[in-house]
Amino acid sequence: MKTFFENVPQIKYEGKDSKNPMAFKHYNKDEVVLGKKMSEHLKFAMSYWHTLCAGGVDMFGSATIDRNYTCKCASPLEMAKAKADAAFDFMTKLGIEYFCFHDVDIDPESENLAEFKANIEEMTDYIKGLMDKTGIKLLWGTANNFSNPRYMHGAGTSPFADAFACAAFQIRNGLDATIKLGGKGYVFWGGREGYETLLNTDMGLELDNMARLMKMAVEYGRSHGFDGDFYIEPKPKEPTKHQYDFDAATVLGFLRKYGLEKDFKLNIEANHATLAGHTFEHELTVARINDAFGSIDANQGDYLLGWDTDEFPSNVYDATKCMIQVIKAGGFTNGGLNFDAKVRRGSYTPEDIAYGYINGMDTYALGLKMAAKIIEDGRLDAMVSERYESYKSGIGAKIIAGETSLDELADYAMSLEKIDVKSGRQELIESIINNIMFS
Amino acid sequence: MKTFFENVPQIKYEGKDSKNPMAFKHYNKDEVVLGKKMSEHLKFAMSYWHTLCAGGVDMFGSATIDRNYTCKCASPLEMAKAKADAAFDFMTKLGIEYFCFHDVDIDPESENLAEFKANIEEMTDYIKGLMDKTGIKLLWGTANNFSNPRYMHGAGTSPFADAFACAAFQIRNGLDATIKLGGKGYVFWGGREGYETLLNTDMGLELDNMARLMKMAVEYGRSHGFDGDFYIEPKPKEPTKHQYDFDAATVLGFLRKYGLEKDFKLNIEANHATLAGHTFEHELTVARINDAFGSIDANQGDYLLGWDTDEFPSNVYDATKCMIQVIKAGGFTNGGLNFDAKVRRGSYTPEDIAYGYINGMDTYALGLKMAAKIIEDGRLDAMVSERYESYKSGIGAKIIAGETSLDELADYAMSLEKIDVKSGRQELIESIINNIMFS
Amino acid sequence: MKTFFENVPQIKYEGKDSKNPMAFKHYNKDEVVLGKKMSEHLKFAMSYWHTLCAGGVDMFGSATIDRNYTCKCASPLEMAKAKADAAFDFMTKLGIEYFCFHDVDIDPESENLAEFKANIEEMTDYIKGLMDKTGIKLLWGTANNFSNPRYMHGAGTSPFADAFACAAFQIRNGLDATIKLGGKGYVFWGGREGYETLLNTDMGLELDNMARLMKMAVEYGRSHGFDGDFYIEPKPKEPTKHQYDFDAATVLGFLRKYGLEKDFKLNIEANHATLAGHTFEHELTVARINDAFGSIDANQGDYLLGWDTDEFPSNVYDATKCMIQVIKAGGFTNGGLNFDAKVRRGSYTPEDIAYGYINGMDTYALGLKMAAKIIEDGRLDAMVSERYESYKSGIGAKIIAGETSLDELADYAMSLEKIDVKSGRQELIESIINNIMFS
Amino acid sequence: MKTFFENVPQIKYEGKDSKNPMAFKHYNKDEVVLGKKMSEHLKFAMSYWHTLCAGGVDMFGSATIDRNYTCKCASPLEMAKAKADAAFDFMTKLGIEYFCFHDVDIDPESENLAEFKANIEEMTDYIKGLMDKTGIKLLWGTANNFSNPRYMHGAGTSPFADAFACAAFQIRNGLDATIKLGGKGYVFWGGREGYETLLNTDMGLELDNMARLMKMAVEYGRSHGFDGDFYIEPKPKEPTKHQYDFDAATVLGFLRKYGLEKDFKLNIEANHATLAGHTFEHELTVARINDAFGSIDANQGDYLLGWDTDEFPSNVYDATKCMIQVIKAGGFTNGGLNFDAKVRRGSYTPEDIAYGYINGMDTYALGLKMAAKIIEDGRLDAMVSERYESYKSGIGAKIIAGETSLDELADYAMSLEKIDVKSGRQELIESIINNIMFS
Repeated sequence: MKTFFENVPQIKYEGKDSKNPMAFKHYNKDEVVLGKKMSEHLKFAMSYWHTLCAGGVDMFGSATIDRNYTCKCASPLEMAKAKADAAFDFMTKLGIEYFCFHDVDIDPESENLAEFKANIEEMTDYIKGLMDKTGIKLLWGTANNFSNPRYMHGAGTSPFADAFACAAFQIRNGLDATIKLGGKGYVFWGGREGYETLLNTDMGLELDNMARLMKMAVEYGRSHGFDGDFYIEPKPKEPTKHQYDFDAATVLGFLRKYGLEKDFKLNIEANHATLAGHTFEHELTVARINDAFGSIDANQGDYLLGWDTDEFPSNVYDATKCMIQVIKAGGFTNGGLNFDAKVRRGSYTPEDIAYGYINGMDTYALGLKMAAKIIEDGRLDAMVSERYESYKSGIGAKIIAGETSLDELADYAMSLEKIDVKSGRQELIESIINNIMFS
Repeated sequence: MKTFFENVPQIKYEGKDSKNPMAFKHYNKDEVVLGKKMSEHLKFAMSYWHTLCAGGVDMFGSATIDRNYTCKCASPLEMAKAKADAAFDFMTKLGIEYFCFHDVDIDPESENLAEFKANIEEMTDYIKGLMDKTGIKLLWGTANNFSNPRYMHGAGTSPFADAFACAAFQIRNGLDATIKLGGKGYVFWGGREGYETLLNTDMGLELDNMARLMKMAVEYGRSHGFDGDFYIEPKPKEPTKHQYDFDAATVLGFLRKYGLEKDFKLNIEANHATLAGHTFEHELTVARINDAFGSIDANQGDYLLGWDTDEFPSNVYDATKCMIQVIKAGGFTNGGLNFDAKVRRGSYTPEDIAYGYINGMDTYALGLKMAAKIIEDGRLDAMVSERYESYKSGIGAKIIAGETSLDELADYAMSLEKIDVKSGRQELIESIINNIMFS
Repeated sequence: MKTFFENVPQIKYEGKDSKNPMAFKHYNKDEVVLGKKMSEHLKFAMSYWHTLCAGGVDMFGSATIDRNYTCKCASPLEMAKAKADAAFDFMTKLGIEYFCFHDVDIDPESENLAEFKANIEEMTDYIKGLMDKTGIKLLWGTANNFSNPRYMHGAGTSPFADAFACAAFQIRNGLDATIKLGGKGYVFWGGREGYETLLNTDMGLELDNMARLMKMAVEYGRSHGFDGDFYIEPKPKEPTKHQYDFDAATVLGFLRKYGLEKDFKLNIEANHATLAGHTFEHELTVARINDAFGSIDANQGDYLLGWDTDEFPSNVYDATKCMIQVIKAGGFTNGGLNFDAKVRRGSYTPEDIAYGYINGMDTYALGLKMAAKIIEDGRLDAMVSERYESYKSGIGAKIIAGETSLDELADYAMSLEKIDVKSGRQELIESIINNIMFS
Repeated sequence: MKTFFENVPQIKYEGKDSKNPMAFKHYNKDEVVLGKKMSEHLKFAMSYWHTLCAGGVDMFGSATIDRNYTCKCASPLEMAKAKADAAFDFMTKLGIEYFCFHDVDIDPESENLAEFKANIEEMTDYIKGLMDKTGIKLLWGTANNFSNPRYMHGAGTSPFADAFACAAFQIRNGLDATIKLGGKGYVFWGGREGYETLLNTDMGLELDNMARLMKMAVEYGRSHGFDGDFYIEPKPKEPTKHQYDFDAATVLGFLRKYGLEKDFKLNIEANHATLAGHTFEHELTVARINDAFGSIDANQGDYLLGWDTDEFPSNVYDATKCMIQVIKAGGFTNGGLNFDAKVRRGSYTPEDIAYGYINGMDTYALGLKMAAKIIEDGRLDAMVSERYESYKSGIGAKIIAGETSLDELADYAMSLEKIDVKSGRQELIESIINNIMFS
């Protein structure tokens, strides 16, 4: 029996001049950058859904990727296990140390919820075995509370209490599985938590309910030994017209409103950032300055397309800006860098998936090295520090200390001969970035 | 001497069949709708800047509108007073009972901050006289902390403490003027509170400072007798690449983080909503369900253009959806409906400004009447209420009451034979809206 | 056996005050508007794919609509015939006189191309029988050259000649079917005619090939008795990153370049227009002034979403502007108004489909009546005519006649005392539109 | 007297490791790449308007850049000459060999058209002197037919014949100046050739007139010795709601319709491409495969902003993809690479302008070198060539040769056992690009 990734060899680091498509040119896992191994900085994770499940379907076309991991005659459970074998084979070959999954990714199709639960348990046993054998770890788990028709109007925000209860059921399974597999993260991506039209929607009730569900999940998790991070993954739209977890700032406001900010951090996805009208770097910065930086879904969107393309990251500028934020945030603790990315529909071979990962991992390795060079160079940080100099003494220091008033400031302003505001030097900064990246 | 609006007659209500371009077809101020006069429901306000100051300039062309309100030989102060005369002439002719302004709108150009302050004081005396004479009231005041080069990198978020102090100076003037003229609102629109590039920006410090400035403004206002509402007006971008007050949800999160939510409400602008990727109705709903609905900047954007076009509102669907939210929020208290709208550059005559207002006011009068019909019809509200029926008893009621757990819900879900989720009936709802609007 | 649309009654016109959801409020097919029956003006058509085939799938969720038109035990061919029965039942109940289809819509799944062809032939016999019985006609036919994996890189623009040949095969079937069923239109929608990345694409060769395929289709059609119109339906993107038939102007340029402009007209879709950054009205105008107005895919997009939502049209403004263009173009000849629209995923009942059509048909009936009122009112046309007055005599007339030169014009300009350019009166025009629509 | 760019030294090439902000790191003008000097490949040009005229104004703020090139007491003509001196000083220091200008850029403000013409003549004499002295050449000239209020409704597409005549006057001046200064290009950028609303617009007449004006310009130019290229520069919107020269494909269709394709080529601007929903690379490719590649306006937009930001190019990926197209097109003939770019409003010093140019020039130098490496590497071209292999023989070759028919192709398709369509290998290609760029 042929294995799915049989044409993918063990991927090794061969250096930047290698032309071997099945080799890393920049990701050298044990190489030390800023005092830490690359593999520790980057904590790469494989997304089970895109890598093992997705068929290349789009709204106008059927599957191009054959996902029969074993004989078509196999039982659903045998098929699910063969899929798990392929998953660990792939991670081993790529040297990826973590993975992420939704309940349904690892589950064979089930007749009912009881069978679904039993299957999850059997499959997590099986996967635990593979983890023990390979040393691969779970980065985070989650439940798919959006694909099943019962969630057509939402899960935690469904107008129908039965759908809400089903969501709770799947979250319990997801948490159980995460705890069992030693995952340090649990993600909420609210794919159907939003609305299609405000005209049939009670937004206040729906948001209150979404918070209630999360609160119950936290209580369950904490009382069952989960000491990792809960994450919300912002996305502004798609599949729904409007999703409540629009962007980082919206989610932070929600967490504060409902008193959930202690248990939750953010899982920032590059493509979701741009769909919301933000740069990836912006979303990471918002998370960081609010002590809510958690984990990353590394991919890449197409700025000219209005949907989630989930491309493998290949833009070194973006990876560099991302890694600057990660380093400034102190690096990953429980989180990591999950490739929530898929090959294009026309790239339908198993090798294409490997090419996607290799390029994604090399792109982030380059991003890390560039970020380190920029930080070590020091020019940028010095410029920023100098720019805010006026807040370090005099009236500026009083502003920061909260020791002045509108009256004092206004009178001070009237006393000024001229207002000194310096150039922002954006063009120079952009030239320094290129200078460092291409030297 | 010719007056600016001399070709604009007193505008009267002539009913829907009138073809007189200089008459209202729907706005009949004393007509009672849902128990209240139209003028009380709508609280129309004139925007001083667009109506009296803007010249029709755009990034590729110079002014088309002649704004010499009196002889070009007049002194700046005489010119500013003639402009104020024109403003009150216009409001009187249109039957508009409120106005809004920035400090610089009413101010002649000044040599320095001291002269600026003196001029504001003289001008507010003059305007107070016009208000007393006409009975016209101030809806809200504000300071223009974005046009002057000293704010090129921000005002409250400037890296330069002197610019911050100047902003404080202008806010003090703006508050003084607002209090003197009896305004019940004071607006913060952070036109430069944002960044051009994250590479030269300390976002954390800037946001902290923005909150500090607002806190000082609140302290000053409250201690000087201002008992109205402070408003933040969200806008996602333009002029800066990213503005901190991105949208309603972002602003609410900011207010909560810094403990400002008691004193601040939102001033929602239609065109800013769509620039942020939201419908106007969405932003109003977010404000309403967070008890932060304050005031409205009524205008209309072009969904296919990526900048603020500030068109006069003419879309009755949007006005209807807006007024449904206003009514659900209990109507305006301190706020009102300010036409932050301008004529197209090619519509350069004073009459065009009147046409813009007439159509804007008629559009909102229609919106109000349609909203009232939809509410009185009751079909929509009944559908929404019925849709959430499952939360009124059983497991749903326990969810709302916070009396259940993940375990109970999950077990309940497993006990269900089938999950009953009903159609959202969006198509039917859209047909009911048209049914009511065009019957 | 229950029939799919059994809860949909015969839909009758009951007038604008009816609250019956299963009745027309505005579409009164025999009512005469501008000298012609509404049904002749509007020529409504049912889209076979959305109405009978789509399951409510999206990229994040599985089907919500049950499409088993008969016992699941039925053979594919029996199922296809039951589906056709449902289609004609639906059209009869709604009073829709035309339909449109892709080959695959009516076809049961086939083992190979030969079986596919045989099935098409059997199914068109069957459908012909239903057409004869009901009097319903075919508006246009087409081939689905985008869903099958063989078209993953294009059909007429595939880098693989075998895929090109398959496209030719499907087009031959599509044309044969169209001719057999008496259709007066044949549509090319190039869902995969474009690229994912320019880096692997020979755009010049691909466009030449696309033209070659169309040329062969014209030759085949004309020699087999097809005397209707060929249409290209522009769409800018989705599923591919860039589609060659981006918009009306692009397609017109393509047709001229390859000498295809005699045989082809445009099929303009509302949602595709807005995805391209244009209004629907714009695309219709471009088609009209180039004598290329052919047919319409009536639907509605969401300006805030970047993908094709294919909503049922409910915006009377847009329908009005559309119908003004249709009337100015002299009305439909071979084309008509096809509802390329689908219910939201959460509107999963057969009744929802009926509500969608009822609202769509009423919206266009209103649009027609509003367009007629605007034309009969005459104010707008008079304003436009007067606006271009200067080209009717003097130097303007010489420009139009091509009887002047840069020198003459430049010297004339230098002789002018002042340049007289009048207001565009956009605000007044918008108020007149509302005046007419809401009087 | 201080000169404007006195703090800008002569900019020299110091190599990639230099940290001197006032030095080139990659642009080494005499270095030979693919057999030609870098300066010949790139043909850099300075934009007179952004570099010498723009003040940093935006829609919400006044000028930040002081543009008094000499004593404020100087006459307009003296000021214009001092500005020209600064322009040539700047180009000399940067080593830029070409410039581009609009009539109004070099012109002092004039009382009337006659004075305007006289001033242009005096100024071109003056500039000619500077050109002779420095060896700097004119890349292209143009007329600003969009800023003056007389063009508020268009120039060649104005509803007012007098405005049309003024446009002809300015074009005559522009052509005279271009010819006198030896320019090999003349650009039409139709900043007001479009509409604000279709409701007051006769699109057919306007487009016919636009073609008439261009035809007259060609006749004038050719009969006065202009043997260079006419260019149209596409832009989709801004300042108008819709601009007729939407994108490359639209313009090509227009040129073909009116028989202008012999005399006109395209001037492609990066930022205009993205505003139209295209990549820069796409627009260049469209121009190239239609033999219409002319010249380039090199800048960079912000994908998340909906207006023309005209940033200095700093993205090496985009520059690389651009230069691949330029090289494939055979390089520039009459055209070149004009920096239609401006510093951010907050970068208000003359040094910032130099930083912008240095980074722009280095970015394109890198782009050229990367493009050369990719071409010399050969992997990509080989993949593309192999991908279309099936059109080189058999049925594919018959398709290309036009020697087959729908019938033959359809029958051929039916004879196939299976359809062989290979992976598009997009992920591999993206990894090869990074492999080459970062090796």
